[in-house]
Amino acid sequence: MQEFRKLEQRLAYQFRDEALLVEALTHRSAQSRNNERLEFLGDSALNFVIADELFRRCPQESEGNLSRLRASLVNRASLAEIARELQLGDYVRLGSGEIKSGGHRRESILADTLEAVIGAVYLDDGFDACRALIRELYRQRLEQLPAISELKDAKTRLQEYLQGQRQPLPAYRVLDVSGKAHDQQFTVECVVQEAGMKTEGQAGSRRQAEQQAAEAMLQLLGKLS
Amino acid sequence: MQEFRKLEQRLAYQFRDEALLVEALTHRSAQSRNNERLEFLGDSALNFVIADELFRRCPQESEGNLSRLRASLVNRASLAEIARELQLGDYVRLGSGEIKSGGHRRESILADTLEAVIGAVYLDDGFDACRALIRELYRQRLEQLPAISELKDAKTRLQEYLQGQRQPLPAYRVLDVSGKAHDQQFTVECVVQEAGMKTEGQAGSRRQAEQQAAEAMLQLLGKLS
Repeated sequence: MQEFRKLEQRLAYQFRDEALLVEALTHRSAQSRNNERLEFLGDSALNFVIADELFRRCPQESEGNLSRLRASLVNRASLAEIARELQLGDYVRLGSGEIKSGGHRRESILADTLEAVIGAVYLDDGFDACRALIRELYRQRLEQLPAISELKDAKTRLQEYLQGQRQPLPAYRVLDVSGKAHDQQFTVECVVQEAGMKTEGQAGSRRQAEQQAAEAMLQLLGKLS
Repeated sequence: MQEFRKLEQRLAYQFRDEALLVEALTHRSAQSRNNERLEFLGDSALNFVIADELFRRCPQESEGNLSRLRASLVNRASLAEIARELQLGDYVRLGSGEIKSGGHRRESILADTLEAVIGAVYLDDGFDACRALIRELYRQRLEQLPAISELKDAKTRLQEYLQGQRQPLPAYRVLDVSGKAHDQQFTVECVVQEAGMKTEGQAGSRRQAEQQAAEAMLQLLGKLS
């Protein structure tokens, strides 16, 4: 359809079945047949294709570093950035409430819609087409991977998230140290006062335990947002 | 190789490059070139292929139910069960400490090794072979999907996990109720005394907040185990 020609040009992909593209662009606020199922499919395709790319491009990296690299590529902010490059917001179909509140610019809606488009391409033309799309969308980011040392750890990400929400910084407190000198276990609490939330982490070093607690807090906040 | 003939028969897959299979079977306790990178790759391939299967088999299910169905299929216990059906434990290469402590029967090692084998098949012969393997491994489970109503919620899974570890049951406590009568927010704490761990959940109902707290606890326990 004429309506989608520019978007398809930017995606470098032309749909056989444009109903799939329409479904991918339809937010749940607009109608019951929406893009949530396609998002589920696209999200897992994206995670797999990026895992494969990183596996091949970084033959020396540990599994942990591959995971962190992937998280830096497929998080909501990166997806929304790519969606904005595609001007995807212009095509998203929203309910009237979401339109009024600026939903077509909202990061979560942009990110989810891009995942749904990826899922739609997979259904429309199979795995090779879907992989080619993801590689193209991520080409620059895959060629300029961040150095491992630059990847943000959980404490940094939590701090930045809270600053973005204009909330005070989290507090960390050692609750318990147990075990013998050469095999200690630290239990650390992370408190976000504003949200009234606490998480804990346990590890062989205080620093690691703090990271665990921060990671648990990020997951908790992610679930609530 | 003769050594792997029976395993390959059970997998219904013959490796071109048997070095990949050896790597997939090598636990990190045995040597530095181990199966952790392959596990990263296999895990994401598995998640994608199962997502795709469920998407097609359950055209009426919501994204949330598809997620829950997938979690019931790709969790550690299910993977370990399939690994035992393949007698994968007989082939796992462990360090001497792990051998002594019965590592070839440990659920986490069996599950991780199976994911690594899936990753190895993907590298050995591409996506179609990998998908065929996963479909075959999961054939019965995909044909006899649990009813959505039978899927275990987070509180139930946490309880079963702790019972399996012979630990006392978790305790839930309402920390805070805020907001007006028609729009209350419950904050609930989940405490696992034995592990000295606390998580919190927040939601519009006490039951939902307990589920959130239990889910956060499961993630925390998963990270530490």
